[in-house]
Amino acid sequence: MNLACELCRHDGGRVLWRDAQLRVVLVDDADYPGYLRVIWNEHVREMSDLSATDRDRLMKAVFAAETALREVLTPHKINLASLGNVTPHLHWHLIARYVDDAHFPQPIWGARQRASDAAVLAQRSAKLAAVQAMLAQALGASSVALLAEGR
Amino acid sequence: MNLACELCRHDGGRVLWRDAQLRVVLVDDADYPGYLRVIWNEHVREMSDLSATDRDRLMKAVFAAETALREVLTPHKINLASLGNVTPHLHWHLIARYVDDAHFPQPIWGARQRASDAAVLAQRSAKLAAVQAMLAQALGASSVALLAEGR
Repeated sequence: MNLACELCRHDGGRVLWRDAQLRVVLVDDADYPGYLRVIWNEHVREMSDLSATDRDRLMKAVFAAETALREVLTPHKINLASLGNVTPHLHWHLIARYVDDAHFPQPIWGARQRASDAAVLAQRSAKLAAVQAMLAQALGASSVALLAEGR
Repeated sequence: MNLACELCRHDGGRVLWRDAQLRVVLVDDADYPGYLRVIWNEHVREMSDLSATDRDRLMKAVFAAETALREVLTPHKINLASLGNVTPHLHWHLIARYVDDAHFPQPIWGARQRASDAAVLAQRSAKLAAVQAMLAQALGASSVALLAEGR
């Protein structure tokens, strides 16, 4: 626990799944409804600071979340990234990317390419309860509050 | 093999290490001497398209490369990303980041923050032969040409 660390002090998004080691949260980004973070609960800086067992555990959760995004949202591409320049507490960004999204084909940190279509975003958001259900199926049940269907 | 794919047709950088499944290349980016890519040789789109065994193999190589970058270059942070919006052939970006680099704390795909210092970049480049040696130690010998010391 690092009191100066944003991800030690806060969940970092709406929690979709959690256990003692990690959590999967929904990032609040209006342009990207299918944007998850998989966050290691302990304050660890780099993947190579984890034991091989813990690295494996974290990546299995990342790939389970990737699978849920693909199955439910059928994006054009998945983007995965562990950066942490501002918040050096291990967290993986998982972003479902579409050819019509705000930055495609740039990374979401690059130059904006176009406006997002509100109706399309709403359709994608409505599927997030199904993403959460697939996560629970892959990772096991957790006591986290469920998203409303068609939210 | 996809004849339209850049990473099927070309190495994608100076090869530091390779075997039948994957290769580690040095990316030609003047601002980032410590920028590697770990590229799966076969044309595969997403991590979740690989078998669990192959995923594990690829991530072990990514983390071995991360360790080599950290040990030799002692960067402030490691950035890892698998994007592939333009070239949907599995490849991991590994970038050694420093507080004085061109984009810090932004991702390298974000807005440039400052000019790079040529002398500092040259010092970092001179260590790349040691990165290659550590890779061979971690992943096993390969028949790839060695970088010159102090290059």
